[in-house]
Amino acid sequence: MSLPEIDGERLLSALAQLGRIGGLDGGGVCRPALTDEDKAGRDWVVGRMREIGMQVTVDGIGNVVGVYAGREDLPPVMTGSHIDTVRTGGLYDGNYGVLAGLEAVRVLREAGIRTRRPLAVAFFTNEEGARFAPDMMGSLVFQGDLSLDAALATRGIDGTTVAENLERIGYRGHAPVGAARVGSFVELHIEQGPVLDLESVTIGAVEGVQGISWTEFTLSGTSNHAGTTPMRFRHDAGLVAARISCFAREMAREMGGDQVATVGALNLFPNLVNVIPSRVVFTVDLRNTVGAMLEDAEQRLWAFADEASAAEGVTLSRRSLARFDPVKFDPALIGLVEATARELGYSVRRLPSGAGHDAQILARMCPAAMIFVPSVAGLSHNVREHTEPADLVAGARVLLRVLMQLADRQPDQ
Amino acid sequence: MSLPEIDGERLLSALAQLGRIGGLDGGGVCRPALTDEDKAGRDWVVGRMREIGMQVTVDGIGNVVGVYAGREDLPPVMTGSHIDTVRTGGLYDGNYGVLAGLEAVRVLREAGIRTRRPLAVAFFTNEEGARFAPDMMGSLVFQGDLSLDAALATRGIDGTTVAENLERIGYRGHAPVGAARVGSFVELHIEQGPVLDLESVTIGAVEGVQGISWTEFTLSGTSNHAGTTPMRFRHDAGLVAARISCFAREMAREMGGDQVATVGALNLFPNLVNVIPSRVVFTVDLRNTVGAMLEDAEQRLWAFADEASAAEGVTLSRRSLARFDPVKFDPALIGLVEATARELGYSVRRLPSGAGHDAQILARMCPAAMIFVPSVAGLSHNVREHTEPADLVAGARVLLRVLMQLADRQPDQ
Repeated sequence: MSLPEIDGERLLSALAQLGRIGGLDGGGVCRPALTDEDKAGRDWVVGRMREIGMQVTVDGIGNVVGVYAGREDLPPVMTGSHIDTVRTGGLYDGNYGVLAGLEAVRVLREAGIRTRRPLAVAFFTNEEGARFAPDMMGSLVFQGDLSLDAALATRGIDGTTVAENLERIGYRGHAPVGAARVGSFVELHIEQGPVLDLESVTIGAVEGVQGISWTEFTLSGTSNHAGTTPMRFRHDAGLVAARISCFAREMAREMGGDQVATVGALNLFPNLVNVIPSRVVFTVDLRNTVGAMLEDAEQRLWAFADEASAAEGVTLSRRSLARFDPVKFDPALIGLVEATARELGYSVRRLPSGAGHDAQILARMCPAAMIFVPSVAGLSHNVREHTEPADLVAGARVLLRVLMQLADRQPDQ
Repeated sequence: MSLPEIDGERLLSALAQLGRIGGLDGGGVCRPALTDEDKAGRDWVVGRMREIGMQVTVDGIGNVVGVYAGREDLPPVMTGSHIDTVRTGGLYDGNYGVLAGLEAVRVLREAGIRTRRPLAVAFFTNEEGARFAPDMMGSLVFQGDLSLDAALATRGIDGTTVAENLERIGYRGHAPVGAARVGSFVELHIEQGPVLDLESVTIGAVEGVQGISWTEFTLSGTSNHAGTTPMRFRHDAGLVAARISCFAREMAREMGGDQVATVGALNLFPNLVNVIPSRVVFTVDLRNTVGAMLEDAEQRLWAFADEASAAEGVTLSRRSLARFDPVKFDPALIGLVEATARELGYSVRRLPSGAGHDAQILARMCPAAMIFVPSVAGLSHNVREHTEPADLVAGARVLLRVLMQLADRQPDQ
């Protein structure tokens, strides 16, 4: 018997169809969590799940799980991702993992194959966090580290709650949260970074997710006239922010490895051409795959910021906006992804994920891993996000083989 | 006969009264050019001019000139400043020079003294430029380098024109502009910088006004994910702006002298914590009293900006927002201010003005100079702007003596 095979055309067509729901003129998608567009996207995906005979459940936070029954009543092998997008998102972020999972189930069903374990394809609510914080909300509730009540009460940027919006779009379901049985979880996703593309590698076996530290600094100096205040008498908050920005870059370069540092948001006050800035609020985003190095980066940055502020006579305060320790995926699953890609003849490399994903939350409850395919030029959260069709098909082929191997393992494996 | 003397109490009381028109709760004044508050302030000052027998004229741009006739029909010795303020201004910026001028005329009149030349006290429209650009609009039209028509057609930040607002407040007058006869001009003003205050010097004999160069830079890099983009692949526009900010500071310190450099306004795009900035628009304000040094500073800054942008793979464009060559005041007048302050027993030093003033425009048509008094902590354009009463009186005393000497000079002097 020949092994079942992904129908590439059908997968690409599904991606294009879902991409038209909330599609933007000129490309890209706007389908933020729990909007009418999200509802339309959900309805469409649920329709596909039912079409291929999956049993669909919706839980209290709106996570949708379709199950393709196995030969035995064992915890399912789960795949999936999310279908919500940022306001100027691409077609593949999240959607690709969900639709490739459905394509994998579809070919198994068409081939009349029933795996030992059930196969589940999930899409989790509000992975992006673009409308409601925190991101990865649905998977956090599913796994149990965020209470359903707290998540439902969350107010979004438009002032409405998650609960209201779930009711409105008809996705406040009844399946229980916080105690799901999941045997293992594998998420297929575009890289959202440039590494695979630049190195012309087709498959990424994701080793883990970088730890994240977001710090907001507020510096207060003295607003004064840009013409009349000699340099030696200045307490320029903006200058200190510039020095910290430069330091963060130098530090990241010096530390090497996976260390990254970004000053992404910065606001000067009063922000006038001829006034020395009295105040600046800015953020530094630090990430590393190694927890100790991330802590080291934080300490070095904070120490420099203290020194630079003192030297200019500017006061500094800081607060943490987000802090996640690095996540390591399951070594056996990483190895399985890598070996499967090689067997299929694809180039493959191990790499960390710089972005957050539902898989890092699922990793708290079961063995988990991720499969990456290249993002052209590393563009993501951008309407120009793109992955070559051949790479999309390659990733789906690897996913199908990995799911089949996991689902047919002996119960004690 | 004893020399006439400034009535300090009366001057301070006048400053307080004018300061209440548009006064802010908790201190400071909001009386932007051609607002209802400006009209109320103008009416009040015109009332004081008439009270002391001055002949008041209003020109086409709303400049108000009060004249105290002299014994001979010669071009007047003029003093004055402006009474418009920034939105969070202080009581003294501009107002002080106008009210001290009126106090000087008042004491001459009370003493029955008529000088050889007429004495004129002027307040010029829209010196601040906070509502309509350019600043020093009224004096530019008065002197002739800005056409009345162009000034009248100027639209402010609220979309209305100077002409409409002048009509509305009743200050579109008929006195001609661009060809006034002025014998000499002396402006009394608070320093708006910290030098006199820090050095405990009472009177500043202002040598000139710094040249000003405002450059707006726009840097365009590539927006990308802060987590997934390795440091070596970044084109971070924000980082380059930070490097240019640091360079501007170092350059100014290294050049020394009067060179100052300020990055006052900076806007990042998209300005999100986890996105590498794709674009930044920011300004650099450079000033120097020496034209050649200002040009040197510009060249060095621009060269560094080009290099830093190229090194990061970021494109740069720049445009000039303002460019004024340094102004040198009349040496004889500077000497007269200095000598008069010494005769009155005040400490005095020569210094440049870092801010722009109407006197620098008047210097294009007649011998001009300025007298500075200390600004506590150098604060200006700030509701906490303050000058000690004794210093306010000292400056007015110097002004009175200088005006008397200028006004009694022989016609050929």
